[in-house]
Amino acid sequence: MTLVVQKFGGTSVANLERIRHVAARVARHVRAGERVCVVVSAMAGTTNQLVEWVTGIEPVHYDRAEYDTVVASGEQVTIGLLALALRREGIPARSFLGWQAGIRTDGAHSKARIVEIDPVPLRSCLEAGMVPVVAGFQGIGPDGRITTLGRGGSDTSAVAVAAALGADRCDIFTDVDGVYTSDPRVVPKARKLERITYEEMLEMASLGAKVLQTRSVALAMRYRVRLQVLSSFEDVPGTLVVDEEEMVESQIISGVTYSRDEAKVSVLRVQDRPGVAAALFGPLAEAHINVDMIVQSVSRDGRYANITFTVSRADLARTVEILERVRDQLGFERVDADPDVVKVSVVGVGMRSHAGVAHRMFRTLAERGINIQAISTSEIKISVLIAEEYAELALRALHAAYGLDRS
Amino acid sequence: MTLVVQKFGGTSVANLERIRHVAARVARHVRAGERVCVVVSAMAGTTNQLVEWVTGIEPVHYDRAEYDTVVASGEQVTIGLLALALRREGIPARSFLGWQAGIRTDGAHSKARIVEIDPVPLRSCLEAGMVPVVAGFQGIGPDGRITTLGRGGSDTSAVAVAAALGADRCDIFTDVDGVYTSDPRVVPKARKLERITYEEMLEMASLGAKVLQTRSVALAMRYRVRLQVLSSFEDVPGTLVVDEEEMVESQIISGVTYSRDEAKVSVLRVQDRPGVAAALFGPLAEAHINVDMIVQSVSRDGRYANITFTVSRADLARTVEILERVRDQLGFERVDADPDVVKVSVVGVGMRSHAGVAHRMFRTLAERGINIQAISTSEIKISVLIAEEYAELALRALHAAYGLDRS
Repeated sequence: MTLVVQKFGGTSVANLERIRHVAARVARHVRAGERVCVVVSAMAGTTNQLVEWVTGIEPVHYDRAEYDTVVASGEQVTIGLLALALRREGIPARSFLGWQAGIRTDGAHSKARIVEIDPVPLRSCLEAGMVPVVAGFQGIGPDGRITTLGRGGSDTSAVAVAAALGADRCDIFTDVDGVYTSDPRVVPKARKLERITYEEMLEMASLGAKVLQTRSVALAMRYRVRLQVLSSFEDVPGTLVVDEEEMVESQIISGVTYSRDEAKVSVLRVQDRPGVAAALFGPLAEAHINVDMIVQSVSRDGRYANITFTVSRADLARTVEILERVRDQLGFERVDADPDVVKVSVVGVGMRSHAGVAHRMFRTLAERGINIQAISTSEIKISVLIAEEYAELALRALHAAYGLDRS
Repeated sequence: MTLVVQKFGGTSVANLERIRHVAARVARHVRAGERVCVVVSAMAGTTNQLVEWVTGIEPVHYDRAEYDTVVASGEQVTIGLLALALRREGIPARSFLGWQAGIRTDGAHSKARIVEIDPVPLRSCLEAGMVPVVAGFQGIGPDGRITTLGRGGSDTSAVAVAAALGADRCDIFTDVDGVYTSDPRVVPKARKLERITYEEMLEMASLGAKVLQTRSVALAMRYRVRLQVLSSFEDVPGTLVVDEEEMVESQIISGVTYSRDEAKVSVLRVQDRPGVAAALFGPLAEAHINVDMIVQSVSRDGRYANITFTVSRADLARTVEILERVRDQLGFERVDADPDVVKVSVVGVGMRSHAGVAHRMFRTLAERGINIQAISTSEIKISVLIAEEYAELALRALHAAYGLDRS
């Protein structure tokens, strides 16, 4: 008998009508002979309201354990309502809060990590022929208090539950119907992928495709949980995230993604001596600013270097401020900041075995007169930084160049 | 060091501003050297919204355990917010859900009874110099699931926590500033009582004075918890509910109350034979209809009886319907129903030792031409049923007759 974990996000359970709709959907699977364990988020908007109340009392330095207690109440409402709706459908069901489902986390309140899931409570429920309805996003810490996993943690809960139960599949129902070769709002010829590998999904998630949380994909990869991304609104097959061996088609490139959350920082005429990069990036690391796409160019006389890198736009002002503070100590001329850039990436496990992938990318962009400001690569992706105004043009051109266009 | 349990109801924590106000109030007590444990309800309106969602999914036959899971989330929000507000006041505080506070109940979901409170978690918190903020209205059942105590259960939670901790006092903060000799909206000369006995408070609570829940007073009486009813809006002393030995003043009568939730039913010309009352009231008991103030009068020839009694107005239609169904079997002539009646009561432990209390009541009413339709008494109260139109007149006349008027 197939065992499936089905996760429904906040928009899927936004009101009573949608909760009934989810119940009907789960009921269809149960009647078709599958065993189902459901994981749900809070009703859309609820978590924001709860966070607003917390910060209304204590704007910044709020106690994280109390924050968790307040915010975790959102999922408590939806598990109860969905269990009731399932029972009304004639499907025996029972709600489980994080602590009731044996979801044990570390003590890092408001951004806890799941340490272990005791499979016994959920397994007993399933064996009794019932559908367990589990609160996502929450667990219990070593101190016996409620913890939350941080925003979007419900995906992670679902994957962790699927791993603990040894489920055959973990379905993530969301407001899109799968993973696309590119953003369909920008690239009208984008196609829905039938399958994608964990590695590709990880890269695409971290490169700006907001379908799945990076963290949940990493967890799925580690425990080999077969993930499916599909629409909670339409009843059509979604995209399966699987092991490379399970891939049938072998495109070289699976997707072209972009991220506007980039800003370019250039530190000009730094004295080029050993340790200068460390001295530059040390203070940024201390301030928890992530740095990406570092390019260093040395002046003709070899005495000076220009160092260019990217940070997320939200960190740009702080980055410049920190650098200005260490300017005298480091002895550079000035800092330039440019928020009008975009990172465009091609992703595909096929590039491991195929040469010329990078070349095709650079040529395609050059043909459109698009200047590449920085490059970074991994085993299965190539990213370039370009001026933001070329974003759509670059995306469509690359999509066509790698043969991804829908015919 | 004095230990006080302070309970704040839904209107006292209705929004962030009021939660801050409650925190400031608790902080004053802590700074004055008292140890305080707080019990709170959900924000006013929240519980109704949650119940509405439950019945929106399943109108009547909803699973009570799921109902409890949903509805208990309301208190979860307020304990976290109040703990945060206390910390902002510089008072170390920590929230406790029912299960975290060791509040164990029976398994009667949605109307559970507290079986036991493990005092260790709250005591440890207090000994660490912190204020525990406990979710009222909820506990954990023998099955490890969340239970709720039924409407108004937060008062009961507070009294039970006070008993478990051996607290010196349990303060119930509400939207009135104490217990009055009568309803001040009807009797302008009503006075606030400094003290009242448990027995009197019990009678007054069940006779319609909506200050405290009957159940919580009974619990306080059983465990000799000194209760105080006081306003959460004004900082004035309230009314202490205490043992009879602690009473200083000795009024014969402490209060005059009334209840409009009464309806009179008269069953006319019942054949007067043994077992007829049982046959009449049996079907009503089976339908969970509470019957009060039974009066039986026998006809001159001794063959027929008229039986009059009261039920709550909500039960009137059902009562008549049930009686009509057994009419032939019982052989009575007809059923009369009269919803326009009111029950007026005088309550006081002093009537145990003073004669003439009932006589004064009957005389006072007779002087105003008010006809008494039924009478019931207990050791410390006398109730009469009169036509509703005389309610205010009767209340004011009795209040004056027993010397309760404010000078």
